[in-house]
Amino acid sequence: MSAEIRTEPLAREAFAPFGQVIETAGTTPYPINAGNCERYDDLARIELAGVHARPLISLMRARHFDLPLALTLMERHPLGSQAFYPLGPHPFLVVVAPDLSGTPGTPRAFLTGPGQGVNIAINTWHGVLTPLVADADFLCVDRGGDGNNLEEHRFAAPWLIRAG
Amino acid sequence: MSAEIRTEPLAREAFAPFGQVIETAGTTPYPINAGNCERYDDLARIELAGVHARPLISLMRARHFDLPLALTLMERHPLGSQAFYPLGPHPFLVVVAPDLSGTPGTPRAFLTGPGQGVNIAINTWHGVLTPLVADADFLCVDRGGDGNNLEEHRFAAPWLIRAG
Repeated sequence: MSAEIRTEPLAREAFAPFGQVIETAGTTPYPINAGNCERYDDLARIELAGVHARPLISLMRARHFDLPLALTLMERHPLGSQAFYPLGPHPFLVVVAPDLSGTPGTPRAFLTGPGQGVNIAINTWHGVLTPLVADADFLCVDRGGDGNNLEEHRFAAPWLIRAG
Repeated sequence: MSAEIRTEPLAREAFAPFGQVIETAGTTPYPINAGNCERYDDLARIELAGVHARPLISLMRARHFDLPLALTLMERHPLGSQAFYPLGPHPFLVVVAPDLSGTPGTPRAFLTGPGQGVNIAINTWHGVLTPLVADADFLCVDRGGDGNNLEEHRFAAPWLIRAG
């Protein structure tokens, strides 16, 4: 029998140990372009470590998943943060976990609301890109450069993620 | 009487002197996440110059414009590139110009198609963020850090941009 995790709404404070929520809500913009544009500035902490590190902009096209979902695998990137911003209207799931002596501790499953993206902090355990409802595109900002930037952990028994 | 510019479709080769088109078209993705996601990797050349330079992720909320449009102002950022990716379905206008002894030469007005964003190269003359049809949000990746990263040029007589 799997241990269960319930989804929780993605919110800035709850997510803070794992990275940043990229959203306009709760941020005061400043006007640019003679008042024709509001800039919500500097919403994520991009982290770039190691040799020849540089930021990348990529597009991701991901298959959707359904809840309940069996979580078998988590990964982390020891050399850089990874930001995902959705290009469609549907929610996605952001599964993260604290580190417990080099393996993921109990995961948490954050469900995004409209207009929310995330930046997952350097070396933070997380699940794969998990759109719900429909296949979805994302803009991604992460790290390029030399060195091994991927560590994976497979759970002996999967966690079961259910709608909270 | 204003000199006129006609819009042209945004395309990779035509835009190459000014930066990169961020799009999946024409790019071969590679599979990640056990085949559940296609990654269109490294679509823009992020340029970061000067002191304490770092990449920023910001959100922009811009008022829309209508064609024909009077182009009175262009700007450039001598210390960094600036990427814009639309978060809605409507086209936007990417106005850029070659440099002519420190001022913008004849501008070009590129009209985006579905799924197209741009990365405007460092120190490249460009117009303000110009969504068409409706007000629109964009994800922006540009440069933070010390130093003056903005130069503006106001035309003595505006250019008139018309649908091509």
